[in-house]
Amino acid sequence: MNILLVHAHPEPRSLNGSLRDFTIQRLQAAGHSIQVSDLYAMNWKAPLDADDSIERRSGERFDPSLDSKNAYEHGLQSLDIVREQEKLLWADAVILQFPLWWFSMPAILKGWVERVYAYGFAYGVGEHSDARWGDRYGEGTLAGKRAMLIVTAGGWESHYGPRGINGPIDELLFPIHHGIFYYPGFDVLPPFVVYRTGRIDQARYAEICSRLGERLDELFSTAPIPYRPQNAGAYEIPDLTLRAEIAPGQTGGGVHVESAGEGAGPAGSR
Amino acid sequence: MNILLVHAHPEPRSLNGSLRDFTIQRLQAAGHSIQVSDLYAMNWKAPLDADDSIERRSGERFDPSLDSKNAYEHGLQSLDIVREQEKLLWADAVILQFPLWWFSMPAILKGWVERVYAYGFAYGVGEHSDARWGDRYGEGTLAGKRAMLIVTAGGWESHYGPRGINGPIDELLFPIHHGIFYYPGFDVLPPFVVYRTGRIDQARYAEICSRLGERLDELFSTAPIPYRPQNAGAYEIPDLTLRAEIAPGQTGGGVHVESAGEGAGPAGSR
Repeated sequence: MNILLVHAHPEPRSLNGSLRDFTIQRLQAAGHSIQVSDLYAMNWKAPLDADDSIERRSGERFDPSLDSKNAYEHGLQSLDIVREQEKLLWADAVILQFPLWWFSMPAILKGWVERVYAYGFAYGVGEHSDARWGDRYGEGTLAGKRAMLIVTAGGWESHYGPRGINGPIDELLFPIHHGIFYYPGFDVLPPFVVYRTGRIDQARYAEICSRLGERLDELFSTAPIPYRPQNAGAYEIPDLTLRAEIAPGQTGGGVHVESAGEGAGPAGSR
Repeated sequence: MNILLVHAHPEPRSLNGSLRDFTIQRLQAAGHSIQVSDLYAMNWKAPLDADDSIERRSGERFDPSLDSKNAYEHGLQSLDIVREQEKLLWADAVILQFPLWWFSMPAILKGWVERVYAYGFAYGVGEHSDARWGDRYGEGTLAGKRAMLIVTAGGWESHYGPRGINGPIDELLFPIHHGIFYYPGFDVLPPFVVYRTGRIDQARYAEICSRLGERLDELFSTAPIPYRPQNAGAYEIPDLTLRAEIAPGQTGGGVHVESAGEGAGPAGSR
């Protein structure tokens, strides 16, 4: 299978650099084809701006959405953006790998998302009306592909637990999992998270690689997070709120994940 | 009072540009002193890397934390970082203003946070041991100052509601509110969010300015979000999980907000 690894760490001789190399080797050994976008090594341009189009709409003020739409439709996108879109289309699975900085992805990777996720490519896809709100959240250009995060964090696992002070890791990653992966159609795999990165000796590193290796071996068989597709009846349109009879009374990002047993028929068969 | 406005939009003739100008005028008219960091206009360097130190630790591999610590301690930080830290120290209140892109802040602003929030300045402050986990979450360099977001979003308010498909706005902003503002000590004000930015006529713009103007007038009197301070007894240390008797059985980022009436004594006096 084809796998794109997008890597965002400034130092190759870091834990993240080592895990990148381990990941590439493991996947190649399993017979996969790998492309790597090493954003720091590529000197990736982070800020989205008017220079993302080779030729601007003349005389208009810059509009992030409309300029992206125009450039995507007319083949006027900056070449670095086109190359990354081609890699995404080529890939059967995409891995984003990064250290958690201030509870989210590094700026350089956020800028990769903002620039590569063009209007018409990752959003603004499909019919947009008051009856249908586009092909997104389970549908879209990247549907049928898988996506997964490999993340390192300095804090302890308990700090990111359900009652941990940093907030639960699932909630912190929800904007990426649901908003960046699921939105343009990816199936989203549970993340691989390494905690307490300040204290990694050889034994722990071996244990981390062992667990990561298993996850990579199961990249195409692991069950995705069962997010609810937007256009399969679970949501009111155009309000885009979860229908009252689904997960009644519950709120929060978690309601967008189907819970076990939900949807089972009268006989419980499913 | 002194107010720092950090603005992240590439086009001055945008809704965000207009709201920036309105904000500056309103605050100046009220007698405040304003400094503006207009990140796109400043051509702010987004990626954190080894060039953030004027002089590197010789021979060492680049370590984002240790290099930041070394540069901060020894006056070796890049001048653009020093200038922003000086603005933060000068300010009584800080406003971050940006369009919500892929459910978070634009890359250029994330890069401002990553580079300006140095080790020793915004993290790694105070005693770090198994008995005390630093001065953070309510304490730290920026304690006593206020912070607030001004955010624009293309989607409808219902899409960001408690059961909205994008996830509740409070959960999406939690990594910024709690993780970027509260962590180094800020008091965090409720955000000012403008929804459905694709449909703004003159009447709606006037209404938005009216509501924003009120929020700016009350910048120093609005009650902050009552996050729980890390070092006042609510958390187990070093696990940094909320003590079992507080918000018992509850989980999620919301548990870190004190709820109304909580902590009232036997007689309800507080």
